[in-house]
Amino acid sequence: MINYDTYLSSAGEKMQGSAIRKMGVVAAGIPDIISLAPGYPDPTAFAWEEFREIASSLLSGSDPNALQYGPTRGFRPLVEALRDIVAGRGIAATTDQMLVTTGSQQGLDLLARVLCDPGDVVLVELPAYTGAIAAFRDVQADLVGVRQEADGIDLHDLETVLVRERAAGKRVNVVYVVPNFQNPTGQLISLEKRRGLLALAERNNLLIIEDDPYGELFFGENEAHLTRPIKADDTEGRVVYLSSFSKTLAPGFRVAWVVAPGPLVARLDVAKQAADLCTGALDQRIVFEAWKRGVLANRVPGLRTHYREKKTAMESAMRQHLGDVASWHEPRGGFFLWVALPTHLSGEALLARATQEKVVYVAGAAFFVDGTGQHFIRLSFSLPPIDRITEGVQRLSRVVKAALSGTS
Amino acid sequence: MINYDTYLSSAGEKMQGSAIRKMGVVAAGIPDIISLAPGYPDPTAFAWEEFREIASSLLSGSDPNALQYGPTRGFRPLVEALRDIVAGRGIAATTDQMLVTTGSQQGLDLLARVLCDPGDVVLVELPAYTGAIAAFRDVQADLVGVRQEADGIDLHDLETVLVRERAAGKRVNVVYVVPNFQNPTGQLISLEKRRGLLALAERNNLLIIEDDPYGELFFGENEAHLTRPIKADDTEGRVVYLSSFSKTLAPGFRVAWVVAPGPLVARLDVAKQAADLCTGALDQRIVFEAWKRGVLANRVPGLRTHYREKKTAMESAMRQHLGDVASWHEPRGGFFLWVALPTHLSGEALLARATQEKVVYVAGAAFFVDGTGQHFIRLSFSLPPIDRITEGVQRLSRVVKAALSGTS
Repeated sequence: MINYDTYLSSAGEKMQGSAIRKMGVVAAGIPDIISLAPGYPDPTAFAWEEFREIASSLLSGSDPNALQYGPTRGFRPLVEALRDIVAGRGIAATTDQMLVTTGSQQGLDLLARVLCDPGDVVLVELPAYTGAIAAFRDVQADLVGVRQEADGIDLHDLETVLVRERAAGKRVNVVYVVPNFQNPTGQLISLEKRRGLLALAERNNLLIIEDDPYGELFFGENEAHLTRPIKADDTEGRVVYLSSFSKTLAPGFRVAWVVAPGPLVARLDVAKQAADLCTGALDQRIVFEAWKRGVLANRVPGLRTHYREKKTAMESAMRQHLGDVASWHEPRGGFFLWVALPTHLSGEALLARATQEKVVYVAGAAFFVDGTGQHFIRLSFSLPPIDRITEGVQRLSRVVKAALSGTS
Repeated sequence: MINYDTYLSSAGEKMQGSAIRKMGVVAAGIPDIISLAPGYPDPTAFAWEEFREIASSLLSGSDPNALQYGPTRGFRPLVEALRDIVAGRGIAATTDQMLVTTGSQQGLDLLARVLCDPGDVVLVELPAYTGAIAAFRDVQADLVGVRQEADGIDLHDLETVLVRERAAGKRVNVVYVVPNFQNPTGQLISLEKRRGLLALAERNNLLIIEDDPYGELFFGENEAHLTRPIKADDTEGRVVYLSSFSKTLAPGFRVAWVVAPGPLVARLDVAKQAADLCTGALDQRIVFEAWKRGVLANRVPGLRTHYREKKTAMESAMRQHLGDVASWHEPRGGFFLWVALPTHLSGEALLARATQEKVVYVAGAAFFVDGTGQHFIRLSFSLPPIDRITEGVQRLSRVVKAALSGTS
């Protein structure tokens, strides 16, 4: 038997037990299990009927390119639509500053490859999205954490860490943030802090990678302005903006995009040629038609209500069953409730008992690049129906209370 | 204005003017141009009506996962179907030796990342597929060429190059081949040579990456046995096999797969999580249904005839118009005619004149990692209708003859 370890690259050697694997999206297939783990959108809210009509017209054969290879930068009408979509978020971009990606995960991956050499430091929040952690780790970047405050990344800590790492001789060019309803915390970076972060980046020659999958899904009636992208105020080209149709239309299409300065998009384009040549032709056309026919615009307000109701149900159950022992900040959008358990408990250690009780979540430690965060857990309210959310929280409360009373 | 060069990784710095860009897939959009450049399948041969019916039933909403995130290794029924598909090609594999990829380009990219450190040598044929060259170059592998003979890669040269590179202290673990109707040469590696290559790999501890997008598209009535994968005779787990639905169903779905030893698939799985999480859910289901409903099996024999007729038309036009000055080997399958011009001509230099004459092709030099191959050009017969193939070759003959008479 061959020992494949001897054939692996340094990256390949490290590719086991990665961040995403640790997420605890386990126990699929156990009957009656309630999963509060994956950050999946709710398929009952997808525009099935409209997608069906669109697919049917696209597959008439009248456009021979609907199933062909396509341009690496993306289906041109979609790229033009994206220019309009980001304009609606305050971002002025030209089509040569856009790249369609096979999900935002690919955008992160391409950025990691184009920007990071092994040993480069990438600054991320404590906690940070595991998919970004995985993408940067795969190019052997050194992830260094920056603390969060109630209104987002701690700018004082950011500057302290940056100065320290550069003084240690490290190349530090990139800070990664999810300003709108962050995965995993649900946190919203305040407008003031967004401006402060941009100013800090300008002062220190940093690039900001701004990942925005959830920005459209705010819960407050008049809170759209709170989600204004950092990129909207970027006059120097310091911000790379990523967004996606995965949470507003459907993730199965794998259609997302990057907005970046032209010279960077040119590099990302070449990297994408080697990564997968192009994003799926049919998927891109379905998404484009859904935009063009108004399906996207018509659906988003209902999604805000839909996910807000689920959020409310989860919070209400949490207050009732775990309000005395757990704490969290109310999310103003997105998919997640980020819960602090009593500090002597470990989200990871509780997972086995939780699985017995037929409820699962994501243990918080996976989101911390510094090995902390043991007592946090991420609960996602996006996928399960409300009665299952309520039941799931009840089960969770039995797990936590058993642990607290020492019977687990 | 920011100088983005200072932010780039070593890989990012090198990502311009890459191999794929050099392919000369230019001049799209010029009216009446005939492109013999891209290796695209013919969309008039796609199963549009069947895909339309399949998509319509998949988008009924009855399977909520049809537009959801899915397992990184692939949609389980498709993975099981792939096991049967490769069994039909002589390959015995279990489902844990399979990974669905977002096109075969992604398979190559993931393999490059898992197997190659900067400076590692990857052995490729002279010439070799540009997409593989790009994937290995992006991880900064050192590509070293091995000569071809009429029946495929020259095993004596392979061993000579391997010994030389290892003696120079290089890590050499991988040889990359396209045994069936290679892109760009259309060449078929003989069965004897396949066995010899496998024995050589075993003797020298090499892994073989066997890329097989065209194997189903053989032209001879009874020549299926000539396409037997090297992987079919691999008892040690030395061969990683890639194949795709891009040439038999449609490339717009971006569905391909890798068969590899379990320990390697585990690494590829982790790499794919960071690369794009999963391949498109709808695309995978359409492809699976097309297999299950017999669309694939019913269509492939007609595709063989269809592409053989185009090949015959191109060869016949070539014999008539360029038979006295150009030479080629008759391809026994696939999409390409690989043409040697008189050695003092350059395929790249002729492209400008060709564009004026409204015909384009791929200059051969892009496929040679050693800087040779100037006088070769790759003509693809797969996409244009027969009358355009004939007209394209006529235009090409004017370009070549003008160059030979010194009037270009």
